[in-house]
Amino acid sequence: MPETEENGWEIGPTHLPAPAGASDVLADSIRKTPPPDVAAMRQLIPRSEAEWVTLVEERNELNRANVRVLADQLALTVEEERISGVRTYRVSPPEIDRRHQDHLFVYVHGGAYVLNAGEAGLGEAMLIAARTKMPVLSIDYRMPPQHPFPAGLDDVMVVWEHLLVTHSATSVALGGVSAGSGLILAAVHKLIGAGHQIPGALYAGTPWSDLTRTGDSYYTNEGVDRLLVSYDGILASAVRLYAGARDLTDPLISPIYGDFTGFPPTFLVTGTRDLFLSNTVRTHAKLRAAGVTADLLVFEGVSHGDYALEATSAEALLAYAELDTFLLQHL
Amino acid sequence: MPETEENGWEIGPTHLPAPAGASDVLADSIRKTPPPDVAAMRQLIPRSEAEWVTLVEERNELNRANVRVLADQLALTVEEERISGVRTYRVSPPEIDRRHQDHLFVYVHGGAYVLNAGEAGLGEAMLIAARTKMPVLSIDYRMPPQHPFPAGLDDVMVVWEHLLVTHSATSVALGGVSAGSGLILAAVHKLIGAGHQIPGALYAGTPWSDLTRTGDSYYTNEGVDRLLVSYDGILASAVRLYAGARDLTDPLISPIYGDFTGFPPTFLVTGTRDLFLSNTVRTHAKLRAAGVTADLLVFEGVSHGDYALEATSAEALLAYAELDTFLLQHL
Repeated sequence: MPETEENGWEIGPTHLPAPAGASDVLADSIRKTPPPDVAAMRQLIPRSEAEWVTLVEERNELNRANVRVLADQLALTVEEERISGVRTYRVSPPEIDRRHQDHLFVYVHGGAYVLNAGEAGLGEAMLIAARTKMPVLSIDYRMPPQHPFPAGLDDVMVVWEHLLVTHSATSVALGGVSAGSGLILAAVHKLIGAGHQIPGALYAGTPWSDLTRTGDSYYTNEGVDRLLVSYDGILASAVRLYAGARDLTDPLISPIYGDFTGFPPTFLVTGTRDLFLSNTVRTHAKLRAAGVTADLLVFEGVSHGDYALEATSAEALLAYAELDTFLLQHL
Repeated sequence: MPETEENGWEIGPTHLPAPAGASDVLADSIRKTPPPDVAAMRQLIPRSEAEWVTLVEERNELNRANVRVLADQLALTVEEERISGVRTYRVSPPEIDRRHQDHLFVYVHGGAYVLNAGEAGLGEAMLIAARTKMPVLSIDYRMPPQHPFPAGLDDVMVVWEHLLVTHSATSVALGGVSAGSGLILAAVHKLIGAGHQIPGALYAGTPWSDLTRTGDSYYTNEGVDRLLVSYDGILASAVRLYAGARDLTDPLISPIYGDFTGFPPTFLVTGTRDLFLSNTVRTHAKLRAAGVTADLLVFEGVSHGDYALEATSAEALLAYAELDTFLLQHL
């Protein structure tokens, strides 16, 4: 049931210092960040397909530049690979950890269901490949404006079914961040519903598990999350671009509304400043209530996906080290 | 390093709806709660020992009444027991789970180091006894104004050392909430420092691990946490009553500043509205970074210790069921 505005409380304003309890790298980065401009972000609403394309291309250009730097730094190789018509990228570390030699990580990027097509979406896939020393296959799924729901989910399903020809399901991890993390949870709902084989483990990085504006942190972390800033603006617009007039509580759109019984072991990460803190902890609690092994990390001072962006921070090192430990335990 | 006010951001004001993502019991209870009055709570500062005694006695009277109701509902027996001069209460469930027959849970109550002396502090000890079906020994440690730091910690240490005469350390869990949770973490720092035996498992319910005003949630959840409301007022005053002029970053006062290497497996619980959300997740991350098994639950819509107060909520049921599973695994 989505939130209503009734019986709510007025909170704040308050002053938020830089997070002295976070790592120096993260705290210093936050000290250099101008205060999030909530009013401006709320107004950032593309009014046409052309405006969407312009906004997306600007962001993707920045991310592509970051990805190229990261690929060099981490000495990774990236190969494009078509799987049943879906474009994917195989990201290979310089050497494979022998304990992962039979494993594959299938990655689904984030970006509010509109950003990070092509190489722009490879940043975290590269970090995972480098830190876990396992091969990563990143799915370049179709997105709106041209391809709304369920095109992206269909692409993930097609790649998954194809991989089962050559891989045992339990040796494959499925993971993603934000919208990509929502997609992987939706895909597992769909696989379980159809009685198909499911992955051996999941990585749900700050999942967009609820596309309705339900969750404390959509409110308490508005203007606190330096990356997403607000649900209003791009996110609210992207919801409608992706889902059209569909019911947002469809578990294939907002996976929090599904039944998590039978899910594979799942590793979840978020932060105290994350606009998706509630999305993440609600997903974790639902998994645990359904009897699923689910392990949660919440980082002090971390905004949405910030642990992946500050790649040299203690938070990033711990997050991917813990992900690796989790995968070694469950694959 | 405590927070500074430099380079901070102004955030809010915002409107916070009741948490539709929480259980009905909790969400309904919050809908009936008046908006937290931050200004009033900030002013609630006892000015003398007599004012402290009056405030404490008012709160304790309420809690004693709740405890009596709970003892009846849960059919528990409570026996007072002196251990080397320290008053304790043995809380026994109607029957002991056979899997716990060699186990003991040693409990340390919360209350900002000033509240909940005597039977007033037995609420959560009773829930734990009832839900895990194991015996609980609750320590009625000395508190300020009469007995500041380190009297309470000394009492916990005395009881612990006494119990080792009759129990194997690894069969005993040590746990508590809030200030009590801070005390048990401080006690383990002290035990490890002295090379003494440590408990088999810990329960750290929303620990007061940092008595300095460091942590995002001291700011972001001011006026959001319906129980603590604000660090200013009672909490800030209690800090000085407890610690006097001592350095608050002493790990025996603020255990977050200690080294967590060698800690026993630890189960931690907090919520999205908890003023101590940051205290809890920072402790969890430090435990994990030190290689300790540590499991974190964060409940949507839950203020400080609210999962224990709404005893019939889905959150309370899940919290103590998960605590039981954790203890069965690690004791």
